[in-house]
Amino acid sequence: MNHLSRLLAVVALSLLPFLGLAQEPAVTVPLPATPGPGDLITPVNPEPIPIDEALRGRLRPLGKPARKVILVILDGLAASGLTFARALSPRESIELDRFPVVGRVINKPPRGEVNDSAGAASALATGYPGPITRVAVDELGRPRRTILEEAKARGFKVGLVSDTRLTHATPAAFGSHVTDRENEPEIARHLMQSGFDLMLSGGLQYFLPAEEGGQQPQGRHLLAEAARAGYTVVKTRADLAQAVSRNAERVLGLFAPSFLPYTYEPSFRQGPTLAEMTAAALATLDRHPQGFLLMVEAGKFDPCLHQYDAAELAAQVRESELALRAIADFVRTRSDALVVVVPDHGTSGLAIVESFDPEKFRRLATSTRLLADRLAATSPDLAAQLAATFPGLTFTAADLAFLRGATAKDFPHRLGWMVNRKLGLEFLPYLREFPKGNAYDHTGEDQFLHALGAHQGLFGGVMRQWEIPRRLAAAMGFVFP
Amino acid sequence: MNHLSRLLAVVALSLLPFLGLAQEPAVTVPLPATPGPGDLITPVNPEPIPIDEALRGRLRPLGKPARKVILVILDGLAASGLTFARALSPRESIELDRFPVVGRVINKPPRGEVNDSAGAASALATGYPGPITRVAVDELGRPRRTILEEAKARGFKVGLVSDTRLTHATPAAFGSHVTDRENEPEIARHLMQSGFDLMLSGGLQYFLPAEEGGQQPQGRHLLAEAARAGYTVVKTRADLAQAVSRNAERVLGLFAPSFLPYTYEPSFRQGPTLAEMTAAALATLDRHPQGFLLMVEAGKFDPCLHQYDAAELAAQVRESELALRAIADFVRTRSDALVVVVPDHGTSGLAIVESFDPEKFRRLATSTRLLADRLAATSPDLAAQLAATFPGLTFTAADLAFLRGATAKDFPHRLGWMVNRKLGLEFLPYLREFPKGNAYDHTGEDQFLHALGAHQGLFGGVMRQWEIPRRLAAAMGFVFP
Repeated sequence: MNHLSRLLAVVALSLLPFLGLAQEPAVTVPLPATPGPGDLITPVNPEPIPIDEALRGRLRPLGKPARKVILVILDGLAASGLTFARALSPRESIELDRFPVVGRVINKPPRGEVNDSAGAASALATGYPGPITRVAVDELGRPRRTILEEAKARGFKVGLVSDTRLTHATPAAFGSHVTDRENEPEIARHLMQSGFDLMLSGGLQYFLPAEEGGQQPQGRHLLAEAARAGYTVVKTRADLAQAVSRNAERVLGLFAPSFLPYTYEPSFRQGPTLAEMTAAALATLDRHPQGFLLMVEAGKFDPCLHQYDAAELAAQVRESELALRAIADFVRTRSDALVVVVPDHGTSGLAIVESFDPEKFRRLATSTRLLADRLAATSPDLAAQLAATFPGLTFTAADLAFLRGATAKDFPHRLGWMVNRKLGLEFLPYLREFPKGNAYDHTGEDQFLHALGAHQGLFGGVMRQWEIPRRLAAAMGFVFP
Repeated sequence: MNHLSRLLAVVALSLLPFLGLAQEPAVTVPLPATPGPGDLITPVNPEPIPIDEALRGRLRPLGKPARKVILVILDGLAASGLTFARALSPRESIELDRFPVVGRVINKPPRGEVNDSAGAASALATGYPGPITRVAVDELGRPRRTILEEAKARGFKVGLVSDTRLTHATPAAFGSHVTDRENEPEIARHLMQSGFDLMLSGGLQYFLPAEEGGQQPQGRHLLAEAARAGYTVVKTRADLAQAVSRNAERVLGLFAPSFLPYTYEPSFRQGPTLAEMTAAALATLDRHPQGFLLMVEAGKFDPCLHQYDAAELAAQVRESELALRAIADFVRTRSDALVVVVPDHGTSGLAIVESFDPEKFRRLATSTRLLADRLAATSPDLAAQLAATFPGLTFTAADLAFLRGATAKDFPHRLGWMVNRKLGLEFLPYLREFPKGNAYDHTGEDQFLHALGAHQGLFGGVMRQWEIPRRLAAAMGFVFP
């Protein structure tokens, strides 16, 4: 042993000359030559852009600031979701594939590694990490200013669009401050106090008093209050179109009692869709020379993934693609516009495995959430119904026992998990034994950020989630928080 | 219904003005002002760098080309692996977190969505996609030139380093051309014909004839042939150190009969480690003014993940971190060096969930692959052994039945899958019923690329896997393929 130790020491010493690379003196980096007409300019210097200096206001981005800025949050859509979207797209290409700048986002909350939508949206809104389940407050429950509030104070128009509901964690974190994301009546009151110029989503029930079927206590009717405060209040696609065509200054649109409908719900056809709300928001906010900051949430990926409903996930991916295309077209035709797109966390461990075949998926996949309304764990003809719905798929006795073991509430989840695995998608092992908290079935891996537009270069490289609003502020010409 | 259709048409028409954003005329992008001393230069222009033009040789990167280029392949280490590495690192930061440029890589093979190491490495080596299980050949089995072969023909020194074995799919794809990745004796012959300046890995058995315990047919002794061709042939860490200190021109190092050892194997301490091989390669190749191209594979993540051996994965992450740090230090102290780091595919669906606690993991995790040597599915005291090894974890009757159901070959996998899930890691559902091909348990999601150094900007944005060697060539000043 002593002999071996000595030998290792000798070997280690002999390796020192070439292990000591770190100690070499830094080489002076030459200035690049003057660019000629055939030159492609890429950084010769391996130094990163000194973004920290910009965030502290010690350096300012060269050129005019970004004045028309859109932050898009893809709730729960991790890397596999992009691959899934592309595999099912007509030309095997998605809008984000054409974004010139990619970043990696570390989305760790203050404790643990896995975030929920409230913690993540709070980080994206306030410039500080989480904590989870809380909405734009610090560890002691004190409000933290959001970048939309800051932008509004600086004269920008500000707006929120979400295809979930306005009081849900993600939009809530940009204009309300509560210690419990479930306290949606209070979130609604905060949002009405925010004075934001445009808010389009679902969640009508939280703005109405009990007499009108709502959840707002003490008889308050927030829509009436909004109208008195100068908002054009709209509840339908046609109302929204009219408000836009009449150049409404401030618009509050609440198009459903809770979540905006999934594509399989009949009311989905009544709209407005995410792309329509986004286009309406851009048209309304862009009317003003002072510029704007708009948050758009594509928020249905997360619930689809929680329910393992891959067919509806595919439909939601198509919907978000239309919204992203409208935004990208808007940004590409302006020199002072910027869009940053980022997921908040992963959900359900979606993975694409060898047996995934886009053709087969398109042919056979159907919303398992919707299918679960027609079937039940106790249906005597469950096997026959499954065979009729999914011709060519084999359902074993173990599969049927797995479904038969479901509670009514759990049945749609088990159906989705079991069927979609047969179509080449995988998820986390079925977690029926776990306590179901807000980060239940969420995953902690780093996420892709995509940026396009003015000062897009500020969003390259690796960053913490809470740096994103700081970088947005740098692009817009101010320091935040 | 007719009434509704008419209403929808009217609404759609009224929405047209703000849905028609794409039709707006393009705005002329102003030239940025001359930079002053306090200015941070970021792109004002949303246009991406015209990389396609560079790849075709119509534009050339401004400034001197990258002459010292390292391509690092992290076999099977997807986004969760980076998060896992960071959570367990002493300062919650990994070397890749400091890389200034991030890209997104679409790693789709020609058929399907999920790659294996052979298909991915062939794409990274040849500039064309896959196909899987084949090594640097086209669909008809004809050889495709690799970027190492091209670089060598252009006067660069070239080298291969892998902590698996030299004839394994990833290193093989850079210097051999075979239709079946399992044909490792032929791969060994091709690699010896390659004339590459430096090759350091395992896989000795494929270079020796049967008489010396090897797999090389017809009595060929490739090490003897290598020595005659001018290679310094080394088999130990001390030999390698000596070869480097004596300025050996060409080095062939084969340090184990097959894979280089895992950290839990006693022979691991004899080295050389991945970091030592990498440092030796940099010292040897950097001696020449003509520059070099080096491929380094950190290849043990994939087998650790296939075996669900999270403790050894953590050890391998530490090993690769040392190698990456040596490379990054090398690149940061030179103006003409470039490193690009990319995984080839995901493996096993590793995910970090809410219950993951780095402290607990550090305290309890042990190599389940190694533990499986001490236990067996049939051990009568299995429950007691598990309880003694993992104090505080609970093993249910179902857990024990799951282990008891394993074949001897399957037991380490089941043990790893079951134990590490209790430590807050998740994997794909246990796939015992699946046929096990080369892309078995692999996942198809897009992967993170990281770049640092000269012309790092060529690696931002979104790219197909097979574009990477094309971009490397552009950075090095030539067009490939």
